[in-house]
Amino acid sequence: MAVYTDVAAEDLSPFLAGYDIGELLAYKGIAEGVENSNFLVHTRRGYFILTLYERRVAERDLPFFLALMEHLASRGIICPQPVKNKAGKVLGKLAGRPAALVTFLDGMWIRRPSAAHCAALGEALARLHLAGADFSVRRDNALSVAGWRQLYEGCRERAYKVERNLEKVVAAELEVLERDWPRDLPQGVIHADLFPDNVFFLGDKLSGLIDFYFACTDTLVYDVAICLNAWCFEPDHSYNVTKGRALLANYVKNRPLSHQEWEKLPLLARGAALRFLLTRLVDWLDVPPGALVRPKDPREYARKLRFHQMVKSARDYGLAEP
Amino acid sequence: MAVYTDVAAEDLSPFLAGYDIGELLAYKGIAEGVENSNFLVHTRRGYFILTLYERRVAERDLPFFLALMEHLASRGIICPQPVKNKAGKVLGKLAGRPAALVTFLDGMWIRRPSAAHCAALGEALARLHLAGADFSVRRDNALSVAGWRQLYEGCRERAYKVERNLEKVVAAELEVLERDWPRDLPQGVIHADLFPDNVFFLGDKLSGLIDFYFACTDTLVYDVAICLNAWCFEPDHSYNVTKGRALLANYVKNRPLSHQEWEKLPLLARGAALRFLLTRLVDWLDVPPGALVRPKDPREYARKLRFHQMVKSARDYGLAEP
Repeated sequence: MAVYTDVAAEDLSPFLAGYDIGELLAYKGIAEGVENSNFLVHTRRGYFILTLYERRVAERDLPFFLALMEHLASRGIICPQPVKNKAGKVLGKLAGRPAALVTFLDGMWIRRPSAAHCAALGEALARLHLAGADFSVRRDNALSVAGWRQLYEGCRERAYKVERNLEKVVAAELEVLERDWPRDLPQGVIHADLFPDNVFFLGDKLSGLIDFYFACTDTLVYDVAICLNAWCFEPDHSYNVTKGRALLANYVKNRPLSHQEWEKLPLLARGAALRFLLTRLVDWLDVPPGALVRPKDPREYARKLRFHQMVKSARDYGLAEP
Repeated sequence: MAVYTDVAAEDLSPFLAGYDIGELLAYKGIAEGVENSNFLVHTRRGYFILTLYERRVAERDLPFFLALMEHLASRGIICPQPVKNKAGKVLGKLAGRPAALVTFLDGMWIRRPSAAHCAALGEALARLHLAGADFSVRRDNALSVAGWRQLYEGCRERAYKVERNLEKVVAAELEVLERDWPRDLPQGVIHADLFPDNVFFLGDKLSGLIDFYFACTDTLVYDVAICLNAWCFEPDHSYNVTKGRALLANYVKNRPLSHQEWEKLPLLARGAALRFLLTRLVDWLDVPPGALVRPKDPREYARKLRFHQMVKSARDYGLAEP
């Protein structure tokens, strides 16, 4: 939860005057999102989300994210829509930060997802991948296998503070993944961070996807592996095969996996676990004094990694061989 | 900024079903307020603020606060309105906390108030005091002169960490205030925390007052003294007499001060400065590791206190003798 940059009404009003959305009536900082500052904005024309991009998001990537949201919406994916200002631009500057206004999306994220929620997620993820197929802009995934060693080097000496021998576990896993990581599976736009807090539901119906600020061009089934990690484990860190089956079955119903994709799923799931283990480890060890964000526990992903290492095939996740 | 207690959609929906406000469509934690957890809630019937009361607010006081808001609104003061549930109650329980739903109020708080804003505040404060005159419930002010020594005792030994000799300054001031504090000035409902972030404006017009969770029965002109402290100093801690004059002139236009109230204003301003100095000092010294709220600097109020100690009469604040 965070608002890193405060915005004064005295500054917001003139900024919004650049848009055709009517007079500013109210705005509130939102205690969600750990990368950017978000405000809910009420104007005569309705409700919007204003995002100020903080330094962890590279300014050069913002056009990719905003264009992607426009593209996906035009293909029927429900996600926030960037609002153009009177000059036709979606990106502006406010309080010294790049800033964008997007439409407000109804819906709530589910704290304790059920198998039915996982099923809906599987379908939405496949539809997202299909909708992104003709998006022409590329953005490399800085947090895929090529970027992990650098994260590891930055925290290997302090990793023992989190768990004994963790640095050895990570080093061994890195070797395997760097050697065996698949390079020739179907690629496209992936969300790369589709955790429950980025998926909205209204009742039991999935009503929208948000937060595309890790989206990139990468192996599609790697996105599935991320979702298995994010959605299908219980609070005690055990894998729930009913949820996994629901997610995977509804994914392949909309976008069938090739035999090679199916075969590589366990390895990709290990990679996804390692990716979140590493970024959480860095955040955990680098939390500055007086930080307003409580870092997430990296050990959760160490346990998930161990589970994936034991998996023999994607059948163990609940998906039959195609 | 804070949301201390997370609320799951799975828990919020059934809670809201107890109200006649339609289906839950969305809700967001708000990064405002340091005492309670606040959520903006969107239902089929509109927008509301949901407050979960955290341990710093005494549960026995909640009926006072909620009844006061209803009373003030019935007297024409624009403030959030408690929403009754189907059982006719304004107070419920959610996520283990007392919880209330109030109407959403448009308007923005002003980060850099001008003399015109101070003038509007002066009028609103007087109208608040008049509207509260026939409110029959009493609530003592735990943070007035009788409560200060205890706060001081809790932090006197560590006060030097904030400023050299601060404990001596406070001790000397406490003696003066305990001896000279006026007991016979007109009393009534005071807001007691009417800082700029609790006063909403739409354009130049004051549009509402919020956050009545320090409201109590106390000396009316003490509320004026709090506002002088909160509104009429510049970022460099100098007193702006133009702002003070605007605030005071518009207050007395709506509720004239007696000669005795006028005479005691400097002493009450010292008391108000000491009250915020002490509570900030406690928060500053007691901030727990991993806290999500950055405490405010107590030294700001040490400087203001020094200013008030030099004041000869309320004339120095910009208010002529009545």
